[in-house]
Amino acid sequence: MTQSKKIAAAVVGATGYAGAELVRILWDHPGVELTALTSRQYAGQAIADIFPAFRGIVPLVCEEFDAQSIGERADVAFLALPHKLPMAIVPKLEGTHTKVVDLSADFRFSNQAAYESVYQPHTSPELLQSSVYGLCELYRDQIAKASIIGNPGCYPTCSLLPLAPFIRQGFISTQGIVIDAKSGVSGAGRGLSLTSHFCEVQEGFSAYKVADHRHCPEMEEILSMEAGKEVRITFVPHLIPMSRGMLATSYSMLKKNMDTSAALKILTAFYKDCPFVQICPEGTLPGTSHVRGTNGIHIAARVDQHANRLILVSVIDNLVKGAAGQAVQNMNIMFGLPENAGLNNTPYPL
Amino acid sequence: MTQSKKIAAAVVGATGYAGAELVRILWDHPGVELTALTSRQYAGQAIADIFPAFRGIVPLVCEEFDAQSIGERADVAFLALPHKLPMAIVPKLEGTHTKVVDLSADFRFSNQAAYESVYQPHTSPELLQSSVYGLCELYRDQIAKASIIGNPGCYPTCSLLPLAPFIRQGFISTQGIVIDAKSGVSGAGRGLSLTSHFCEVQEGFSAYKVADHRHCPEMEEILSMEAGKEVRITFVPHLIPMSRGMLATSYSMLKKNMDTSAALKILTAFYKDCPFVQICPEGTLPGTSHVRGTNGIHIAARVDQHANRLILVSVIDNLVKGAAGQAVQNMNIMFGLPENAGLNNTPYPL
Amino acid sequence: MTQSKKIAAAVVGATGYAGAELVRILWDHPGVELTALTSRQYAGQAIADIFPAFRGIVPLVCEEFDAQSIGERADVAFLALPHKLPMAIVPKLEGTHTKVVDLSADFRFSNQAAYESVYQPHTSPELLQSSVYGLCELYRDQIAKASIIGNPGCYPTCSLLPLAPFIRQGFISTQGIVIDAKSGVSGAGRGLSLTSHFCEVQEGFSAYKVADHRHCPEMEEILSMEAGKEVRITFVPHLIPMSRGMLATSYSMLKKNMDTSAALKILTAFYKDCPFVQICPEGTLPGTSHVRGTNGIHIAARVDQHANRLILVSVIDNLVKGAAGQAVQNMNIMFGLPENAGLNNTPYPL
Amino acid sequence: MTQSKKIAAAVVGATGYAGAELVRILWDHPGVELTALTSRQYAGQAIADIFPAFRGIVPLVCEEFDAQSIGERADVAFLALPHKLPMAIVPKLEGTHTKVVDLSADFRFSNQAAYESVYQPHTSPELLQSSVYGLCELYRDQIAKASIIGNPGCYPTCSLLPLAPFIRQGFISTQGIVIDAKSGVSGAGRGLSLTSHFCEVQEGFSAYKVADHRHCPEMEEILSMEAGKEVRITFVPHLIPMSRGMLATSYSMLKKNMDTSAALKILTAFYKDCPFVQICPEGTLPGTSHVRGTNGIHIAARVDQHANRLILVSVIDNLVKGAAGQAVQNMNIMFGLPENAGLNNTPYPL
Repeated sequence: MTQSKKIAAAVVGATGYAGAELVRILWDHPGVELTALTSRQYAGQAIADIFPAFRGIVPLVCEEFDAQSIGERADVAFLALPHKLPMAIVPKLEGTHTKVVDLSADFRFSNQAAYESVYQPHTSPELLQSSVYGLCELYRDQIAKASIIGNPGCYPTCSLLPLAPFIRQGFISTQGIVIDAKSGVSGAGRGLSLTSHFCEVQEGFSAYKVADHRHCPEMEEILSMEAGKEVRITFVPHLIPMSRGMLATSYSMLKKNMDTSAALKILTAFYKDCPFVQICPEGTLPGTSHVRGTNGIHIAARVDQHANRLILVSVIDNLVKGAAGQAVQNMNIMFGLPENAGLNNTPYPL
Repeated sequence: MTQSKKIAAAVVGATGYAGAELVRILWDHPGVELTALTSRQYAGQAIADIFPAFRGIVPLVCEEFDAQSIGERADVAFLALPHKLPMAIVPKLEGTHTKVVDLSADFRFSNQAAYESVYQPHTSPELLQSSVYGLCELYRDQIAKASIIGNPGCYPTCSLLPLAPFIRQGFISTQGIVIDAKSGVSGAGRGLSLTSHFCEVQEGFSAYKVADHRHCPEMEEILSMEAGKEVRITFVPHLIPMSRGMLATSYSMLKKNMDTSAALKILTAFYKDCPFVQICPEGTLPGTSHVRGTNGIHIAARVDQHANRLILVSVIDNLVKGAAGQAVQNMNIMFGLPENAGLNNTPYPL
Repeated sequence: MTQSKKIAAAVVGATGYAGAELVRILWDHPGVELTALTSRQYAGQAIADIFPAFRGIVPLVCEEFDAQSIGERADVAFLALPHKLPMAIVPKLEGTHTKVVDLSADFRFSNQAAYESVYQPHTSPELLQSSVYGLCELYRDQIAKASIIGNPGCYPTCSLLPLAPFIRQGFISTQGIVIDAKSGVSGAGRGLSLTSHFCEVQEGFSAYKVADHRHCPEMEEILSMEAGKEVRITFVPHLIPMSRGMLATSYSMLKKNMDTSAALKILTAFYKDCPFVQICPEGTLPGTSHVRGTNGIHIAARVDQHANRLILVSVIDNLVKGAAGQAVQNMNIMFGLPENAGLNNTPYPL
Repeated sequence: MTQSKKIAAAVVGATGYAGAELVRILWDHPGVELTALTSRQYAGQAIADIFPAFRGIVPLVCEEFDAQSIGERADVAFLALPHKLPMAIVPKLEGTHTKVVDLSADFRFSNQAAYESVYQPHTSPELLQSSVYGLCELYRDQIAKASIIGNPGCYPTCSLLPLAPFIRQGFISTQGIVIDAKSGVSGAGRGLSLTSHFCEVQEGFSAYKVADHRHCPEMEEILSMEAGKEVRITFVPHLIPMSRGMLATSYSMLKKNMDTSAALKILTAFYKDCPFVQICPEGTLPGTSHVRGTNGIHIAARVDQHANRLILVSVIDNLVKGAAGQAVQNMNIMFGLPENAGLNNTPYPL
């Protein structure tokens, strides 16, 4: 592939954790040339001054976002910004050839009212119909044709992929699903807050936003679509005293008897062509360290037979499969590259 | 209180984590004189050489366990040993005046078959009828009269106290209870294992023994007794990358409508005379760091009304309320001391 | 001791980490009644709402600082405030009977110019002559007579106590002392900063303010006084990915030959009447976890004979012996209480 | 490069931490085919069962070590074994074409007596003359011609690279060098020990082997060779509560006046052709997280002018530049590949 054929990519909001992960992945991506990084807070500064790990490696300098300039210099723009900003920016990129992968919630919902019930009034509702929910393993075909991707939230990615085969095929009840999820601190971003202060987090574990997290309606919309009828879930997130990693444990009722082995076969068949999905062999369980720094998701299933309950345990790196990695996976699909291009490094053993 | 009136206490198995916590608590206890520490592995060595935090403070030396000697020197013996050893030791203490608080599972079950289904054949089954399950807030009266206490497991302590008021009073269904629990590493003890190796734990989070943990039948026995009919639960424990602390999130179905405020009132009324139980005000949630090093349990409730589901979140220090602290609380009750004697230090703010 | 004879104490700045530790210690102190907590940021809020560990235990509410009110209600005021505020506040308390233990740097220096070279112009220089440097083990006699104490910095406390016997008695050269110190994150306080963000600290270790830290002149002033001539040191602090704890390793040249055993004897003799100082037996070394949550300092010595160099390793809890604990120790001395009153809890074994 | 031209590599001892890192790096290395993994403990098991991060990625199975088989199947064998085993194995590979990179201490010393003073009798002393110390940035030319490499220890790598330009060029005194170093827990390996138990390490920091670590004579041999006369150092290692990463702070006396800027220029010039060495710009300092997972070393210098002392601070990942990464760098040099082949992934920003 010649230099001129590479995809020109911009990272808008390059100095948050998801943005910096995008820089890391895209800089090594064999099919991409990284042409622009933007940051309001650090405009004019080298990215390597913000993240010294990039010193001597990534020579780019952050700039202010300018829609026209990005439109001219990028085939794809990754938006790693707080909610509300992308829905103002994306319309400005319409008319350019620049495709968008938005990591915020602004283009994840097809139902405007659902979005507005947990975020704010949507200022570009007309784009919600053409944007595609970028959960790659489920919606590859739509993603391939899309020009605006709403990159899924980390909790939905980790929780929906294990449930999808069972809900789509009607193996579990649409009633009574419980998702008990746990995330590392990087999920809360690089902004300053007492809840991210080292001394408030270290050697502590807590629940937060019990049955009140904004990722809940995002999951309910997708599950309802997959089930063909309304699904309501109970979702409780927790904060783990570690930087990266997410684990979701879900509990649902089987509609017919099934043992653990059968549940694993359903998962294995469903994801047989998905390079990033690993189904854990029976008797083994996933840990977040197994996927640290990778775009993988490891899924285990176990049937609690006396209760006829299906237990699914899944792990991702919240910054990779839960954010930047899946965003690049979406780009790969949109541009016809191999789905794992730039995402297939062998992971760290610990 | 004069020196001669103090309770003479022995810690059998003083060099594990629960044993060392017992040493800490008993050494400062105003009504106790610590007369003997035993350890097979470290017999002959000063406890302060094993735990340098005790240097200059606790001058005791570990000795081999000898039933006759302990029987003569201790009004109460705390057994902080692996399962199976206590049921061999306790009969040897019968006939002495020494009361026993056993921190293993050996005397937690009244149903011998339930014990044997997850542990091993019980060699002193005749003692199971006289021993009392030492969940202090629920069984004070029986504890006060007992001479053998089966000190509850950490997961049962953390999970049962929030559920008890609702199950006993019939507010929740006995069907479909899910307990998703999370524990720090010290729960696995001081023994060497890859699963406790720093590099295997740090920056990782995982589930283990999914629907297969030995604390599950312990909880089912108590819940069934409280409900007056058989209760089966789904229980999934997880390992948190931290030393101390435990959080349990339980999900159960309300039998009649109730809001969060009503659920909190039930908890508050039930535990109004319990010095170690704090019900979190509506809108607040507990974290393990709020009870680190203390014998407290903090409990929050939230009703997920669209699902009619009661969510309970509770935290304890697994080594204190989940082990050594509750053991001392049991002793206090058995010997007629104030329930919080020796257990009422103001906790660390972080 | 009757209730009316208790020392009335106020904590000014109760919601930082050192302030909250003061609350913890003073609340349990048998000779103290805690009469006031102040906080600019949280005035009107219960301390237990800021630090939920205090829930159900400490019922006090934070108030705005008012000098006259504090002067009337407190025999002693602990100032746990940022540098610069105490030198404005202390003069307002002159004329009341309230003694002051100031945890900032404002009253640590007797040399005004040294203070001003690293802080700012001193607005109450006349008080520097009567205030006493509260390094308890060295300056008990002056402390007993003082009404204003400059409570030492954490690094100076940890570094000076091991060096003092050797420098005072002339065993080591006043030239070429190197102090390589390491601190947990709580030393930087509860304020928000990227350098305290969990994800920026976890799994990282770094040096900071190399040969440029404000505790360096504080140490040089004391060492020079003890040596009877000017001492200049090289001081490099580092940040450890943990909450609490500090370790200092110092390197100095022996003026005459001495082996490790002799060095340990010097330390043991010097600190024989000091309840908080433990000299580690030859062949053992201290760790920060040995003193976590305590007012202790553990000190090891080793002579590197081929280089004729004395190596001292010492550990403290930066929030206790390095801040709140030593402040209370100073109060005990000022008011004629046993030096370890309220500070002698048995520590956690892990 | 065609498949047949790839270097066939074996990892002997693949299931320790350094071994597993070798697997990670070599599996992705564009010029290498990984042909054999050996493990005594796990022979017959898939490496992905030992390290689940490799699941679905590395399909290799561990085998027992057999010298003849390895000799036939490997152009290069990496020995990631405990000290003492390699000196028994390497002679068995003599006569085959297999080159050796040994990660133990067995081939690091040219002086047999120095080795034996801190390890054990050397059973293959004749090979010490032909083996080369694999500190790549200093000894590239000898490495290129060698067939046995003694891969440097992690502490020597981190400490020697900053000092080398100054000691070789005579800028610092050969007397009085102090190295105060700090390492993450993975440096102690995957073996079980109380000192690696999570609960004994977490929230703790300690010194160990003060002036008594086996890496000290390794450093003294190299420094003496570079200086052209005997150098004795004082070396104190410490244990950081984190998995990966190492930081060394060294203190040495300048022989002539020099400011920080001049010291940085010396470093920059010395390492101008070294892709893995980054000299931190004046005013910035390195942290271990800046090199996590990479083969880089970041070095800062600061002159403490009132003491005429040079302070050097350097960071590496102990498992990469301190072990597996440098081993691969040595291989690259031995086989004429670009020095950074397989080692130039963009690092994680956090």
